[in-house]
Amino acid sequence: MNAVNEGGLEWLSAVEAAAAIREGRLTSRDYTEACLDAIARQEDTVGAWTFLDRDYALAQADAADEAHRLGRPHGPLHGLPIGVKDIFDTRDMPTEDGSPLHAGRTPRDDAAAVARLRAAGGLVMGKTVTTEFATYHPGKTANPHDPRRTPGGSSSGSAAAVACGMVPLAIGSQTNGSTIRPASFCGVVGYKPSFGAIPRNGALKLSRALDHVGLFARDVPDVALLAECLFGCDAEDPDTRPQAVPPLLRAALSEPPTAPRLAFVPGPVWELAESETQEAFGELIEALNEADAAPGLGKIEQFDLSEGFSEAQALHAVVMETDLACNLAREYRDGADRISPVLRAMIERGLNQHGAYDYARALAMMPALNEALEEAFFNFDAFITPAAAGPAPFGLEATGSPAFCSLWTFCGLPAITLPLLRSADGMPLGVQLIGQRGADAKLLRTAQWLMTRDFT
Amino acid sequence: MNAVNEGGLEWLSAVEAAAAIREGRLTSRDYTEACLDAIARQEDTVGAWTFLDRDYALAQADAADEAHRLGRPHGPLHGLPIGVKDIFDTRDMPTEDGSPLHAGRTPRDDAAAVARLRAAGGLVMGKTVTTEFATYHPGKTANPHDPRRTPGGSSSGSAAAVACGMVPLAIGSQTNGSTIRPASFCGVVGYKPSFGAIPRNGALKLSRALDHVGLFARDVPDVALLAECLFGCDAEDPDTRPQAVPPLLRAALSEPPTAPRLAFVPGPVWELAESETQEAFGELIEALNEADAAPGLGKIEQFDLSEGFSEAQALHAVVMETDLACNLAREYRDGADRISPVLRAMIERGLNQHGAYDYARALAMMPALNEALEEAFFNFDAFITPAAAGPAPFGLEATGSPAFCSLWTFCGLPAITLPLLRSADGMPLGVQLIGQRGADAKLLRTAQWLMTRDFT
Repeated sequence: MNAVNEGGLEWLSAVEAAAAIREGRLTSRDYTEACLDAIARQEDTVGAWTFLDRDYALAQADAADEAHRLGRPHGPLHGLPIGVKDIFDTRDMPTEDGSPLHAGRTPRDDAAAVARLRAAGGLVMGKTVTTEFATYHPGKTANPHDPRRTPGGSSSGSAAAVACGMVPLAIGSQTNGSTIRPASFCGVVGYKPSFGAIPRNGALKLSRALDHVGLFARDVPDVALLAECLFGCDAEDPDTRPQAVPPLLRAALSEPPTAPRLAFVPGPVWELAESETQEAFGELIEALNEADAAPGLGKIEQFDLSEGFSEAQALHAVVMETDLACNLAREYRDGADRISPVLRAMIERGLNQHGAYDYARALAMMPALNEALEEAFFNFDAFITPAAAGPAPFGLEATGSPAFCSLWTFCGLPAITLPLLRSADGMPLGVQLIGQRGADAKLLRTAQWLMTRDFT
Repeated sequence: MNAVNEGGLEWLSAVEAAAAIREGRLTSRDYTEACLDAIARQEDTVGAWTFLDRDYALAQADAADEAHRLGRPHGPLHGLPIGVKDIFDTRDMPTEDGSPLHAGRTPRDDAAAVARLRAAGGLVMGKTVTTEFATYHPGKTANPHDPRRTPGGSSSGSAAAVACGMVPLAIGSQTNGSTIRPASFCGVVGYKPSFGAIPRNGALKLSRALDHVGLFARDVPDVALLAECLFGCDAEDPDTRPQAVPPLLRAALSEPPTAPRLAFVPGPVWELAESETQEAFGELIEALNEADAAPGLGKIEQFDLSEGFSEAQALHAVVMETDLACNLAREYRDGADRISPVLRAMIERGLNQHGAYDYARALAMMPALNEALEEAFFNFDAFITPAAAGPAPFGLEATGSPAFCSLWTFCGLPAITLPLLRSADGMPLGVQLIGQRGADAKLLRTAQWLMTRDFT
């Protein structure tokens, strides 16, 4: 078993560390060094990083400390080391997209999300391992709770690094289940905001309609702190919209005016959940329904989605496979032999198997399904549902199934997984909350409320 | 021959009329009555309107005059009667989309473009004839210059109404060539702004990627006046972007700092131009190249688009047919027998003939083709090219070919047609100017510069 949470400085939360640095009680160098030491101790086992330069990380930390000494204004992430999935362009580090075909890529500019985290004072600690082109073929990362198991994917390194104290925060992505699944397997908080909330320009493009930036932290306020720095419109991402950035951290830290109404939504893939997961969920709902344990919470009702939602998995596949074929056309043409069989098969289905009408209809179903959920979100603050079929599977040749995420990704709904459950053999198992599209602040408030309930 | 431009009050330009109304030299009632009289005289022949209520139009004019008397602030379109293509929802008039399947539709709300023209003080004069679902099957409208000929489509009524003094301004749409073509055939200014410049919510949706709002007027400042009131972001149209509305009218009325550089672009369909059109264009370029006639204008060079652009017509068809099938799915399912054979064939091609990969690739080609034009628009202020293959064809069973518009619509470039040429038998023939995407103000300035040159 690996050293998960043993209480050193590296386990300080991002919110705490940012406050301590701001108030001069902690230097960015000390905090970053503690994280680098955690990496040095565990990287051989966990393999979360594809690029890491200790000296360069410390130089960034020293620059943050120097800015503090000079009295320069602090951004909300001032001095915090942050892991960046290796599909986000970085102007000072390679970006190789988990594929030998992109080995040696050295982008000229930062991706929008990277530029924003730097503008908020964050340090790019290094680049975290992604599966091949953020799809299924795994990288070198192992699950920090049990290195014989997958960390999940595709944001494998980001989830694992946050889980074992290597960084308090990391960014990843989700086109199907690439944030929620690894966060669930690694026992951290994973948050996929509403579609279009965070600009994606400068990140590997798989599917305009499905790509989301995803975020990792160890608690809800931390993930809210990071999200608040990344939200907002960008002229280069046509799916971001002009709207004020919601006060996510304040929302996460505030008590709901009345106890949130949760709906248990088994969803279209409940039968795929392992029996252990089904049982754990039953117990969780029961525990939440104990009046003493969760004061003010009405009974959690089960809410069954209508027939149309069972199609979402297939609709998702039409869009994702077609867009993969389109966005990786050059790679497939010039280097099919260096693409894994699993990805090659997806690209080939995208090239040949889908009709244009089905593709266009799938895109049209996105707003239609959102509309169909309007009444549910009038009655409920959030859906509660498993984040994955079960705990991280054994073996490092695959990264597990994203099936428990596809529908929510397809609809662009905000989703967050919380490490609330444990399997019989002690592996983490995520509880996924789903909010209404655009209502990210409310979802984070509900998530923090649930995280801080005293139930067992 | 019909009464085109005989010099009554109805021929006052929108800019002049708006100034006269603002200054109390003209009432909206007098102006609107003159336009209504022009309609009464010509509607039997031209058939531009599908809904018109004289009393209701005058009631709106009286309300504008009353607001003037009360000293209320004037919008830029205060008191001007405007024609609205019958695919834009209007809360006070039916909106039937040119199809018996939508007969009797009475929308609850105004389309965004209609709401904006009302907010600017404009009156909705009535609803103008559209072809069936803004595609090819014609309505009742005839060409005001020769009623044996088509007015073009799909914005048939809007183009014809403006051409014969029924209204100074009208709105229409363009998904392929539905603004530029009828404007060219009817001898008016037709303007299709950059993709996303004017919100489309509340208008018939054929294709999210191709639909544009189009505008009609008799001169460039008028069309700029109208456009400036309609531009801008709307939360309900996800393809509008947050950016300041450009000062279009001021741009149209200002002299370019140096003479614009025009490139003659035959484009991928030049061979489809009638020989008369080819000759007229040759003479136009020659006349423009006469130093005395166009002082300061460098020689107009021919600019040949690269190979990739010849594919645009086919790419456009994949997207348009597929999206038609998708957006008219209910109509096709429930009323295929009341859909014209030409539209039914398009829908059926959209249902069956295109692959998802080709569709997604077509969408990806839109930014790629725009990038390929970057250098050309560094060297040239606008492209000059025919608006149609020739003058309006005889017969009212078809509306002519949109081929000279498809590429520019596909790329979302701003396009304007100017009634600068005449065929041997006196029919108007449009000269189309194309600008860089987003550079609408510059295009309008260049267009006005060209309109006011003294060349023959």
